[in-house]
Amino acid sequence: MNPVLDAIHKRRSVRDFTADTVERETLIQIIRAGTRAPSGLNNQPWRFAIVTDKDLKARIAKLTRYEKVIEGSKALIPIFIDRDAVYHELKDYQAIGACIQNMLLAAYSLGLGAVWLGEILKNSDQVRYLLGLSENFALMAVLALGHPAHRKQTSTRKSLEETIIFEK
Amino acid sequence: MNPVLDAIHKRRSVRDFTADTVERETLIQIIRAGTRAPSGLNNQPWRFAIVTDKDLKARIAKLTRYEKVIEGSKALIPIFIDRDAVYHELKDYQAIGACIQNMLLAAYSLGLGAVWLGEILKNSDQVRYLLGLSENFALMAVLALGHPAHRKQTSTRKSLEETIIFEK
Repeated sequence: MNPVLDAIHKRRSVRDFTADTVERETLIQIIRAGTRAPSGLNNQPWRFAIVTDKDLKARIAKLTRYEKVIEGSKALIPIFIDRDAVYHELKDYQAIGACIQNMLLAAYSLGLGAVWLGEILKNSDQVRYLLGLSENFALMAVLALGHPAHRKQTSTRKSLEETIIFEK
Repeated sequence: MNPVLDAIHKRRSVRDFTADTVERETLIQIIRAGTRAPSGLNNQPWRFAIVTDKDLKARIAKLTRYEKVIEGSKALIPIFIDRDAVYHELKDYQAIGACIQNMLLAAYSLGLGAVWLGEILKNSDQVRYLLGLSENFALMAVLALGHPAHRKQTSTRKSLEETIIFEK
C-alpha cells in the first residue's frame, strides 16, 4: 500500500491528546492542505479560524457535549463557509467536506491527531459570536487537534458489497 | 513535504486520458479508500456505481456538457447518497465530499487521473434511470477516471490571508 492509501486507511478520529503544544506553522500547513481541495467553479468557499487561546477554547467547549475533547485539545480550527461564495449548497458542502478530509489527512501525516466535530453545529451562531464574525460566515465544523495520546482507535465500515450498488 | 501532503498539493483534475484501460481491482481500491472517510454517526451514506461499458458510458456522457471528458475516460464511478442513511443533510453532503476527496487522492497515488464532475447533477434522475436505481439513491457526483495524458494542469488558490478570518 502506498503512503497515501496507507494514511487514508490508518487515519482515525483522535479525541485524547498529550500535553504537547502544536506549532502555529503546523496548523498553517494543515489549513494550506485544506485549501488544495477542489471546489465547484473553483469558488473555494472555505474560511478558517485558528484558536489556541485557552480561555476562548474553554468557552467554545461549553457549546458541545464533546467539551472534554476540546478542553484536552491544543488547538481548534473552526471551519466556516462564506455565504457570498456559495453557488450551489450541495456542491459547496461537498467541497467543505473535501477540504476537511485534506486537513485530517495532513494532520495525520504530520504526526498529529484530529477529530471532526459536527455536533457543535447545533450552536453555530454562538461559536460565530464568540469569534466576532458576521452572519456572512456559517460554521461548517470544528477540528480539534493535538498530539495523539495513543493510536488505539478502531473503526468499522460496511462491506464493499453493501456500498457498490451497480456495475457494468 | 511528506508523501501525503505532496499528493494533496500535486493532485489536479485530469480531463485528458490515454487509451490504456483501468483495472477493476484499481477501481475497487479507489472505492475502498472512499469508504474510509469519516461520517457523522459513522452512517456511511455513500454508494458507488462502476461503469466501464462503452455504450452505457456514452449514454451518460450525453447528460453533461463534459461529454468529451466522459467519452475519453476509461471508467466512471457515479457516487450516490442513500436517502435512508441520511440524518443531517449538511453533514451527509460533507461526508460525501470527504469520501470523494479520498478517492481523488487514491487515484492520484495509483498513477491515475480523475475529475470530479458536478455539472451532471442537473440530470441526476436521468443518470439514475440509466443505471436502473430506485429513488432511494440520489446522485452526488460522477468521477471520470483514466491514465492521464499529461500532468500539465495548473490551478490557483486564494492566499491564506484571504481564507484565515480569525486567529487568537
